[in-house]
Order: sequence, then C-alpha cells, then structure tokens
Amino acid sequence: MKCMVTGGAGFIGSHIVDRLIADGNKVVVYDNFSTGREFFIKHHLNDKNFRLVNADLKEVEVLNKEMKGVEFVYHLAGHADVRSGFRDHFIDHEQNLEMTQNVLEVMYKNDVKNIMFASSSSVYGDANIHPTPEDYPFEPTSLYGATKAACESYIRTYASYYDMRSFIFRFVSFTGARYTHGIVMDVLKKLKNNSKELELFSDGTPRKSSLDVKDGVEAIFKVINKSNDQFNVFNIGHDEITTIDHVVDWIIEAGGYKNVQKNWLGKKSNWKGDNEFVLLQNTKLKALGWKPTLTIEEGIKSTAKYIMENILTAND
Amino acid sequence: MKCMVTGGAGFIGSHIVDRLIADGNKVVVYDNFSTGREFFIKHHLNDKNFRLVNADLKEVEVLNKEMKGVEFVYHLAGHADVRSGFRDHFIDHEQNLEMTQNVLEVMYKNDVKNIMFASSSSVYGDANIHPTPEDYPFEPTSLYGATKAACESYIRTYASYYDMRSFIFRFVSFTGARYTHGIVMDVLKKLKNNSKELELFSDGTPRKSSLDVKDGVEAIFKVINKSNDQFNVFNIGHDEITTIDHVVDWIIEAGGYKNVQKNWLGKKSNWKGDNEFVLLQNTKLKALGWKPTLTIEEGIKSTAKYIMENILTAND
Repeated sequence: MKCMVTGGAGFIGSHIVDRLIADGNKVVVYDNFSTGREFFIKHHLNDKNFRLVNADLKEVEVLNKEMKGVEFVYHLAGHADVRSGFRDHFIDHEQNLEMTQNVLEVMYKNDVKNIMFASSSSVYGDANIHPTPEDYPFEPTSLYGATKAACESYIRTYASYYDMRSFIFRFVSFTGARYTHGIVMDVLKKLKNNSKELELFSDGTPRKSSLDVKDGVEAIFKVINKSNDQFNVFNIGHDEITTIDHVVDWIIEAGGYKNVQKNWLGKKSNWKGDNEFVLLQNTKLKALGWKPTLTIEEGIKSTAKYIMENILTAND
Repeated sequence: MKCMVTGGAGFIGSHIVDRLIADGNKVVVYDNFSTGREFFIKHHLNDKNFRLVNADLKEVEVLNKEMKGVEFVYHLAGHADVRSGFRDHFIDHEQNLEMTQNVLEVMYKNDVKNIMFASSSSVYGDANIHPTPEDYPFEPTSLYGATKAACESYIRTYASYYDMRSFIFRFVSFTGARYTHGIVMDVLKKLKNNSKELELFSDGTPRKSSLDVKDGVEAIFKVINKSNDQFNVFNIGHDEITTIDHVVDWIIEAGGYKNVQKNWLGKKSNWKGDNEFVLLQNTKLKALGWKPTLTIEEGIKSTAKYIMENILTAND
C-alpha cells in the first residue's frame, strides 16, 4: 500500500516509517524539517519504496501532487511543544489545526480514505477519572490540547462526510530512540553543565505515564490491522505511573552521575496548562492483545542512553 | 454590569439583549448584520444603556475599542447554517472558530473575565445515548458541529490560562419570535407558492427536539445567576421530542392551510451531516429549578404565526 507519513522525519513519525517499510509498503515522508532530522530516516534514502519530500503542509499544491496514489495518511506533523501555546496563542492553531485541515482537504480531493492521527492525552486536561477512558469529555487546559481536540473533531467530520476511516490515538509522552526534547533531554543538558547540582522547576510530585515509542507504534498497528470500525479512538499509554522525582533519578543513574543534589524550585507545575496527573485507561487496546514490553524505568533509561550517544554534542 | 453581546441583532442574541436591558445592564451589541436585523433591536436604540456597533469580529481594533469596560461577553455571533459546511469547508472554521478566538484574544487583552458561548447539540453528532448527557464525547458529523466543539475547547483553555469563567450552552433548535430560518420558514415559503402540494426532502421520520427561545434564554440566565463554578457546560433542550412529520402538520395548521398534500422525497436526511435523532438530557438544568413553559407544538405554532405576521413579504 502507498502511504504518506507527515512529520515522517520526526521522533514518532520516523518509527512509523520504519514499520511501514518493514511491512513492505511504499512510503512518502512529507516533512518540513522544522524539528525532523534526516538522521532519523537516512537508512531508507536508497530504498525504492521510500520517497522524501522536504516541504511544508502550507504548500498545498506540493501536498496535492505528492498525495497521488496514496491510500493511507499517517498524520504525525504538528507543533509538539505543549508549553509555548501560553505565550503564542496562534502557533498551535496554525500548525496543528490548520495544517490538519489542509491534509484533510487534499485527502478529500484525491479520494484518500484512511487517516491515522497523533492526538494526545492533553485533550482530557486535568481529568478527574484515572485511568482516564476514551469517552471522557474534552477539557483541555492548553492550546496544544485544545487544537488536538479540534483536529479530532475535524477528522471525524471529514471521515463522516466522505466515508473515510479514521484512527485517532491519544498518546501519553513517548520515550525511546530519537526522543530529542522533553525532560530527559533537559536534565541531561543541565547535568552536562553542572554534574553536582540540578535545578528543577517542579516539586517532583506530578505523576505522569510514559511509554516506549516501540510499544506505542506496535499499539498503533495492532489497532489498524485488527479494527473493522470506521471511527477509531484509542488511548495509548502504560499501566504504570511514576513521579517526576523518580524520572529524574533514573536519568541521573543512566547518565552515570552520582551524588547530584536536586534543587526543586517548588512550583508544582512549571508552566501554565500542564496536567499534573496523567494516566490513561488502556483496556480497549489490551482487548486487542497489546501490552507494553518495557517498564517506564527501562524506557527512561534507554532514552537517556540514546540521547547521550547520539544527540548531545560538545556544544550542549 | 457592562456586557457585550456579539451577534446581538440576531435571533437568539436579541432575546439575550432584551433580558440584559430588562435586568438593568449596559449592553454593547456587536453585529455585522450579515443575518442580524435592526428590526430585532430597534426598541432599544434610544436607551442610554444600549450601544449598537455595526462591525465584524474580523475588525479586531474595533472590537478591542468596544471591549473597554466590558465585564461579560455573550458570544452569539457565528455561522448558523449547519448545512453549508458540506459544500464550503472553511466557512465554519472562519466564522465560528477564528472569530471566537478573536473574541477570546480581545477579552484576554482587556482582562474580561466572563464568557457565555452558544454551542450546539451538533457537537454530539449521531449520539447513541438519548437523552444525551453533557459528558457524552464529541462526535460531530458536520463542520458546524466540529467548529462549535473546537470553540468550546479554545474557550475552556483561555478560561483556564487566564482565570476566566466560562458558560457553554449546547442548544437544540430554538424556535419563537424572530426565528427567520430553518424548517418553519422553508415550509411557509413553499406553502405561499403552492398551498396544495408540499415537497419535503426528508421522509418525515427524523426526530428532533426544539425549544422556545424565551425558555432557552431563561435557562441561560438561571445558570449564570446560580452557578458558582468556573467552567459551566449545560445542555438546553426540551423533554419532548417530535417527528418532522408532526412539525410540518403544525406549521400547516398554524398557517391556516387545509388539505395540503405532503410529498416526502424519501431521503431520510436531506443533507449530509444532519443528525436524525436529537434529544438532550436536561437534568443538570432542571436541578437549578428550570423547566420549559411551552410545548414543542406551541413553540412551532407561535413561530409560524410570528413569521407570517412579521417576516414573510409579498416577494417570498
């Protein structure tokens, strides 16, 4: 099958590309390289089933040309920094919602009938049910979450108007190879500059769930291969939950640091709109035979090792 | 209190204006008169507590100037024709979502802390629970519904970022004085041209709930006056439900027509994205002491009479 992966040179997108190529599909990666890295997909560059398009989703004519013959769009491109929406109120609207509508328009014009979308646990906001089930209403507390929620509604509508199949996945934080932002990167950078004292904005108590990207990608394809429904909405998250304090300890340990003094700056949440307790119900997913293979601790430590070996440079 | 009513010269907006003025508030009506009518608000034009601004929500500088001193925004302006989104995929996005974000931005810049928003039963799409409760997830089947859902998420986020109070109301169809579109208007126009035969696109079976606008406005103010919550989401709908076939019969009767032959064209839904069974749970609202005072039949008949006496012209 010919597939397009928007954001296919990014963290999660490139893992989806690996899987699609391994399964024998033709893959068009559509990426503007704002955060994607050629490094993540360079092993496919000489594959005849692989095509790389360096373009923005704003360039609708390019997108339209590249959509010819595509049967399935994996829409991973988007603005992934949840924090910045508090300062810039339009970046999520433009990069998440408007670009998703561009994708849907071009799919409709080319009669493409399948879309997978990377949504987020942030659509639930500060949910008062944990683990949070898929039918919990949208109560986002960030424009990132609000635009992911809006994308879901637009996708459902186009799918309903034009008999498309939609696969919406609400992710917890993913960790693992090629993860180049978030807490693991931040802590390792700080430790590189000061291996004795570590300043941390939280008080260590917020509880989060995370999942290794390989377990996440396995979940996505389990659903796509097993579901017969037109509209699909699945949480993808771990059974486990942990505190930020534990996460920091695991990063320190994996980094080979010792006797680091952690200075928690005391504010419970380090930015407006953060959700301090994230745990998603994953029973729908488990009913399909999926389960995570790595613990959160294993996922965090392998991420730290990956970043130290591949990403952190002498300048960081 | 100084209030702004966007879309205040429209059907529901003008009833909110009547109530706010009656309660002794200062009111700024902000309306571009795309569908609003001066006729609906002309009785306030000489009132010192009333100010009319003929402008579009795109004109952010005008909006910003008029927002000075406002404490409560009633945001009614929007694209109200649910059907047209199937042909024009951007009209709801621009007129509902982008204009709502303009309102939120200007509120934030002027430190306005209260917003009421007119959402819709269409956020639920073809719900499989009836009456549909407020915590039913968003499953819109029209871009109208998708953008109303998106507006709700954006409003919740701004309210969360900036400690605003939000009052979101999901309306069924409202009927009553000043209702100038929808089935009552359509049927009366057709009967004016042909009083013997009436062509109807549905098969008569879709079931809908509607509510008289005066009962709806009473519900809105019951919530605003009684709630102490920061985030408020309420369905506003009747306990009753009826078929389109009955509605047509009531319009015929109220219009004074007799022996009209109804020709149902057989398609169950007359446009893509319609929801054929709409009944909202209203127990949250009733717990505040509200109940409808008019039956659906009384509401439809009074609407038909209003349209014949005030709206239909010799040219219709």
